[in-house]
Amino acid sequence: MEVVETIEQIRKIISKAKSAGKKIGFVPTMGALHQGHLSLIEAAKKQSDFVVVSIFVNPTQFGPGEDIAKYPRPFDADTEACKNSGVDVVFAPTVEQMYPGKNITWVNVEKLSEPLCGKSRPGHFRGVATVCAKLFNIVRPDFAFFGQKDAQQVIVIQRMVADLNMPLEIVVCPTIREKDGLAMSSRNKYLNTAQRKDAVLLYAALQEAELFIAAGEHKSSLLKSQMEKILKISKQIKIEYISIVDARTLEAIDEIKGKVLIALAVKLGAARLIDNIVLDVE
Amino acid sequence: MEVVETIEQIRKIISKAKSAGKKIGFVPTMGALHQGHLSLIEAAKKQSDFVVVSIFVNPTQFGPGEDIAKYPRPFDADTEACKNSGVDVVFAPTVEQMYPGKNITWVNVEKLSEPLCGKSRPGHFRGVATVCAKLFNIVRPDFAFFGQKDAQQVIVIQRMVADLNMPLEIVVCPTIREKDGLAMSSRNKYLNTAQRKDAVLLYAALQEAELFIAAGEHKSSLLKSQMEKILKISKQIKIEYISIVDARTLEAIDEIKGKVLIALAVKLGAARLIDNIVLDVE
Repeated sequence: MEVVETIEQIRKIISKAKSAGKKIGFVPTMGALHQGHLSLIEAAKKQSDFVVVSIFVNPTQFGPGEDIAKYPRPFDADTEACKNSGVDVVFAPTVEQMYPGKNITWVNVEKLSEPLCGKSRPGHFRGVATVCAKLFNIVRPDFAFFGQKDAQQVIVIQRMVADLNMPLEIVVCPTIREKDGLAMSSRNKYLNTAQRKDAVLLYAALQEAELFIAAGEHKSSLLKSQMEKILKISKQIKIEYISIVDARTLEAIDEIKGKVLIALAVKLGAARLIDNIVLDVE
Repeated sequence: MEVVETIEQIRKIISKAKSAGKKIGFVPTMGALHQGHLSLIEAAKKQSDFVVVSIFVNPTQFGPGEDIAKYPRPFDADTEACKNSGVDVVFAPTVEQMYPGKNITWVNVEKLSEPLCGKSRPGHFRGVATVCAKLFNIVRPDFAFFGQKDAQQVIVIQRMVADLNMPLEIVVCPTIREKDGLAMSSRNKYLNTAQRKDAVLLYAALQEAELFIAAGEHKSSLLKSQMEKILKISKQIKIEYISIVDARTLEAIDEIKGKVLIALAVKLGAARLIDNIVLDVE
């Protein structure tokens, strides 16, 4: 497995693989790889002939006061994990490679970038869309793999690809969870033992909503207050949002019907954690 | 020569050409082809193996009250001209093909989109950048050809390609002029005989500036007032701007030095006309 740092190097490797008729599978990451990432790599291995993983902590998707400085960067463990997973090449550019000057070109997916996480993280999805556009143009994948865990990111990227006619397919893979239900995240590392214990409440709240819906309760307001109760079992959890929205438009809905995204974000100690479920309700 | 309307069709044709190892040259146009466009096609023929011309009057680059409805669309003459010029395929999508729903994804090149034409045409360069990103993703050219006539457009597109790492090269071709110096433009059709006569003053003003600079005059304010005098020979010309800017940053400069763009825009009857020269001054 090769690990390359420059755009020129990765372009050469990709051109060669493409010339050999290989389908390129791409897993863009910020490193700190966990089982969730490995499941994306596994899906990429199955669906393509040549798997590229990028490791890049993208500064343009972090806001002021966010955790870019302390974001975990276990580079050797990450490349080792990629190697063991059968990745063909890791693209790990420096910030200078990706943003050699001041970046003034932005890809913005209006409306979809604004609600949910967009509210507390203005500019975040513009940064995500822009860096994904850049990475897609560099790697030129046939398929790019994203986790359902970052539901809004998936929707923003899918819409960008559709609106800009990008020649690739976005493949969405299920959220991978710890045994107790906590969604895998590089930011789980920020939790101490007590916080880690409380973190199970995120998925518990989502499951509670699912149970209520299965029992016929379709009122968003009631479901949200029920979820709130569960999260409030923890004194340490600070709720950022609990949202029930149309899974395509991300517009808030009052009555559960059709494809629905139930998403939440909380602060728990030093970590900002998100989780979600998507339901198709008749 | 094929003329295709759907994205699916053009993608198939491009894939086939690429599989055959052909380099793709792309000339994006809004139709109403003139000698300027034909010079781009000629350059594309020389530099690539397979030439694609798009004809698409892009609604997202027109503002309210602009001339999208009356913009000339001599489709048969255009395709005939392409055929005679050895174009391999014309891509002439409908608006529905290019914008099947409400477009919410925008590519914006900040700063470079704002001065000069950007002032009177807010959103124009965002529309240009977005449609070019779309077309580049559809046609996947090795080279795309633009005319120096649209100087700001060239700079915006070049910066977009660099910032977003788009895998193509922008080739800039010289402005093609009528015998009397008027820059070729599809909008020259809007001029009546008297206006057409006055239109020579645009290039005359630029040439005057060039003469003054050659004679050692480097003060922008003086050069601009000299150009203004020439344009004001016509009672019908309404000056929108006369700008002397750094040719890379588009920032106004007081003293001519380095690579300088001298650009102007006027209203003349029903036409809005632009022209420019680039000088490298020691």
